[in-house]
Amino acid sequence: MRGYFNEDLSPAELEHRTRVADDLTADVRRLVSATVLTDTDDDSVAEARRHIAAATAALQRRTLDSDHFGIRYNSDGSRRHWGNAMVGRRNPIAPPMVLHHDAERTWAEFELGAQYEGPGGLVHGGVLACVLDQVLGSAAEHAGAPGMTGTLTIRYRRATPLGPVRAEGRLDRVEGIKSYATGSVSTADGVTVEAEGVFILPRWARAADGDIRTAGGDA
Amino acid sequence: MRGYFNEDLSPAELEHRTRVADDLTADVRRLVSATVLTDTDDDSVAEARRHIAAATAALQRRTLDSDHFGIRYNSDGSRRHWGNAMVGRRNPIAPPMVLHHDAERTWAEFELGAQYEGPGGLVHGGVLACVLDQVLGSAAEHAGAPGMTGTLTIRYRRATPLGPVRAEGRLDRVEGIKSYATGSVSTADGVTVEAEGVFILPRWARAADGDIRTAGGDA
Repeated sequence: MRGYFNEDLSPAELEHRTRVADDLTADVRRLVSATVLTDTDDDSVAEARRHIAAATAALQRRTLDSDHFGIRYNSDGSRRHWGNAMVGRRNPIAPPMVLHHDAERTWAEFELGAQYEGPGGLVHGGVLACVLDQVLGSAAEHAGAPGMTGTLTIRYRRATPLGPVRAEGRLDRVEGIKSYATGSVSTADGVTVEAEGVFILPRWARAADGDIRTAGGDA
Repeated sequence: MRGYFNEDLSPAELEHRTRVADDLTADVRRLVSATVLTDTDDDSVAEARRHIAAATAALQRRTLDSDHFGIRYNSDGSRRHWGNAMVGRRNPIAPPMVLHHDAERTWAEFELGAQYEGPGGLVHGGVLACVLDQVLGSAAEHAGAPGMTGTLTIRYRRATPLGPVRAEGRLDRVEGIKSYATGSVSTADGVTVEAEGVFILPRWARAADGDIRTAGGDA
């Protein structure tokens, strides 16, 4: 199926690729932030652009066979979705959210800097919706009831300044193929946004139900 | 107020900065995509990282006084929100959405590539929520009823493959300080996501009501 790949990497190779990915992506995130915040002269911008073109060419010497990273299942049962816009460790636009789970909830604590701005000095409302879609969907999946987003309702209680945030979600109930999850984003001053999501198990996953529900940990 | 700045740039200087910003940001977007899709060897990654660090240093030779781009009003009545996560022309994580308006609606046609992935090969549901927040909010504002997002409800009708999309929004009605907008995202195969949003005029804008409603065009 498009978007899903099977691989067979050794634990050592997986660990190595993880380290390489994290270092590279952290560097690109710094560059993204510097691009938003620069106020430098034209010569320095031209110099930066030459380096950026050289870096892009180096990375493009060999590329994946697909035009997207996809979900890569390894033979050890783990999987990588490193292209994911919120949690992808090879995706510079991901903050990234690093998700933690316990029996009751899923959460992440991370920084939303200059590149996530909407109104002046505040996090973009849509970025907060994106964060909540991710944490609610992951909470439902981790609780054993995965699905694609069906409906997402976001209530903005007050503005969220750019800076550190905490996102949290939990599975409330399951009705047939529908999972209901709730959650919030908060800052040190308390909850700023609340959300409810309905996640629906896709048809293809119902046929291979055991597959998606026991897919194992994310690498 | 934090996040809002007054500037006095000449038309020629504004035009020049726009061109410099567009070229730089387009280059960084290509690098972001290459970072997601690379499958190159460690030496090439190391080489890329050296160039990325040099580019970042060049851009950081002089930076804005603030830790965010903010909304920059110019004396000619135009304004720049170049740090905006969806439409910001100096923000590499923005697709960017270039918004068009007519008497009835606001729309944008753009590409969502590898860095906007959620499920394998598909656009992240949260990214679609972010796109819709932007186009609904802009539609309300352009129709003369701006506000911060109060509630956003997204209904996912079917999956949205990575690739070209169209987003569209319109103001449905205004009730006091609340603006109600609706819209959708579609591909060549039709509508994939629908949304409703309630946007609320913030207290500070009510005090200076004429200001935000007549802020003029975006640079």
